[in-house]
Amino acid sequence: MEAPESSLKFDLLAEDGRARLGRVTTYHASFETPIFMPVGTAATVKSMTSDDLKAIGTKIILSNAYHLYLRPGHELIEEQGGLHKFMAWDGATLTDSGGFQVMSLSGLNKRSEEGVEFASHIDGSKHMISPEKSMEIQRALGSDIVMVFDECLAYESSKEDVAASKDRTTRWAKRCQAVDLKSHQSLFAIQQGGMHEDLRREHAEELTELNFPGYAIGGLSVGEPLEVLWEMTRIAAPMLPKNKPRYLMGVGRPQDLIEAVAAGVDMFDCVMPTRNARNGSVFTWSRKINIRNAKYSKDNSPLDPDCSCMVCQKFTRAYLRHLHNAGEMLGGHLCTYHNLYFYLDLIRKVRESIREKRFDDFRQAFYKKFHCP
Amino acid sequence: MEAPESSLKFDLLAEDGRARLGRVTTYHASFETPIFMPVGTAATVKSMTSDDLKAIGTKIILSNAYHLYLRPGHELIEEQGGLHKFMAWDGATLTDSGGFQVMSLSGLNKRSEEGVEFASHIDGSKHMISPEKSMEIQRALGSDIVMVFDECLAYESSKEDVAASKDRTTRWAKRCQAVDLKSHQSLFAIQQGGMHEDLRREHAEELTELNFPGYAIGGLSVGEPLEVLWEMTRIAAPMLPKNKPRYLMGVGRPQDLIEAVAAGVDMFDCVMPTRNARNGSVFTWSRKINIRNAKYSKDNSPLDPDCSCMVCQKFTRAYLRHLHNAGEMLGGHLCTYHNLYFYLDLIRKVRESIREKRFDDFRQAFYKKFHCP
Repeated sequence: MEAPESSLKFDLLAEDGRARLGRVTTYHASFETPIFMPVGTAATVKSMTSDDLKAIGTKIILSNAYHLYLRPGHELIEEQGGLHKFMAWDGATLTDSGGFQVMSLSGLNKRSEEGVEFASHIDGSKHMISPEKSMEIQRALGSDIVMVFDECLAYESSKEDVAASKDRTTRWAKRCQAVDLKSHQSLFAIQQGGMHEDLRREHAEELTELNFPGYAIGGLSVGEPLEVLWEMTRIAAPMLPKNKPRYLMGVGRPQDLIEAVAAGVDMFDCVMPTRNARNGSVFTWSRKINIRNAKYSKDNSPLDPDCSCMVCQKFTRAYLRHLHNAGEMLGGHLCTYHNLYFYLDLIRKVRESIREKRFDDFRQAFYKKFHCP
Repeated sequence: MEAPESSLKFDLLAEDGRARLGRVTTYHASFETPIFMPVGTAATVKSMTSDDLKAIGTKIILSNAYHLYLRPGHELIEEQGGLHKFMAWDGATLTDSGGFQVMSLSGLNKRSEEGVEFASHIDGSKHMISPEKSMEIQRALGSDIVMVFDECLAYESSKEDVAASKDRTTRWAKRCQAVDLKSHQSLFAIQQGGMHEDLRREHAEELTELNFPGYAIGGLSVGEPLEVLWEMTRIAAPMLPKNKPRYLMGVGRPQDLIEAVAAGVDMFDCVMPTRNARNGSVFTWSRKINIRNAKYSKDNSPLDPDCSCMVCQKFTRAYLRHLHNAGEMLGGHLCTYHNLYFYLDLIRKVRESIREKRFDDFRQAFYKKFHCP
């Protein structure tokens, strides 16, 4: 089958070991990689306006087909002019296919070759998402990067199940590829294969054959030990085409990003900076802290003296601790703002270090300062 | 007793009927009146950063001695450099004394000539606020305008009780006046007297004698019918000194502001624009609407086509309805932003109409368009 022409362009600008500096050009935005995508599940990066996202340097955000299909509905968003217009975001967008969510969020689900029947996590109503349905949803949303509908298994699954699921994901990828998207959209494949190197390799080869404009590593960060996550990333990333962006889905902590970049990964998303922020958990260049801790109640220093974000320029730990302690929504917002700035600043520094061929120095300096829990 | 010198200046710039255009100059900001003060009870106007407040034209915000005394504590805020620095707000601030809150928020309370013993609404712990304690709290906070500690009775109170309470509030006002504040702070008196014209007049005379730099009308918006609120405002406002700012506490709806301006009031605060916003209740120039209503789910118009705020320039009713429906915090924030902009825009238009001696035309035009429920 002839692969559809893609509107997405990827240029490899520099390499430093396996780490890569690239440039992705989509219809809505062009950006350098490695990049971190803030998660805006329900067409909103929680608490952040589009101006806030711009101010911290966001180029691309991730949203979710599963959530938007259920609420407010993809047809509604399409009628409203698509996801970008709906949420007043003129940067790039990537939508996840729903493959992961129908397994992890909905209670009952029933898988078949056709797709996945599931019960909504909102009201229990019954739905079915197939590869074709996922494409219909993401087509309506109008995201720049569309993800194939994949099957994602739990960490504990048997190798036999993982192999069968990998084969199904390939068949589903082909079905997704057969659906016409909008001309500005590009479809990324998702590599599965669990924690099995041979299955990962087979799947990479099958998907490469299909010539997608980009490739994701799926099925990680599903409960495996962290050493396994790193090891599998090091194994999986080089299997994917060198001349296409590589996206590690749903990962992760700052150190996970750095290790994945070292393995040759270009794109990341994770709810960690946003979800943690709402619980008062804040990233600094030396460690993760929880601002709710009483020891910060009189601390008049910024969240991170080494951070130049608006929050660190204006507000003290004592004030942020007060906001969280009093249940004030500004507390969650300001910590979200800071955490996303931290992630984008981290990945920007990663890019600069690759450009200047000193990624390993950066990585060592990072670990010297950052306390990994 | 010699009244302390005040750092607050009030200039009457224009009059149109009883409506007044003035200018208040405090240490932190100078602003024209009539003015609306967004409420930032716990040292945060809920969901709004100081940059947001600046962007919508906020000049002065109100915060609360009762809340800040209980959490995080006024000493802590003083150690942190005062309320302005703590919340990174360089405009003016006014703090309420706690007189109203110890009656309305705390469960058990016991009044005496000394002050009010009460149980914290947060943890039930026992506390006492006296006039001196309220001054100590507000001195520590460092607000530009400090309110006297007053006794505020329920609407149903007997005239005898109201009279006794009014006398006590005068004695308390003197005790407040006897406390040294910081040099940049100014103390406003609060007129009580319930719904009784004679008591209101007596109290106005007693307080005027004490020569405060500003005067508030207290004890309204405590459950009385709206006609009574308007009637009492018309009666009470002219009793207060003409050459001092007049502040109607805790009022109110857009139409209440307009009627109070017509009566000669200069300053307002109310939780309505902020509290309503978080429940999806939004002010427009034609009516109050609730954005959660299903009829807005596909409405691609702005909250108010006549509003030029950031929210109305960028977002549709359909998007805002989605955010509220999905419980997304951005929904509360964007509606707060819009509602405060609406209140500040309304009061700005009121000021322009007084400056141009067409306040009555403005008032009539407002009612012609605005549907008062």
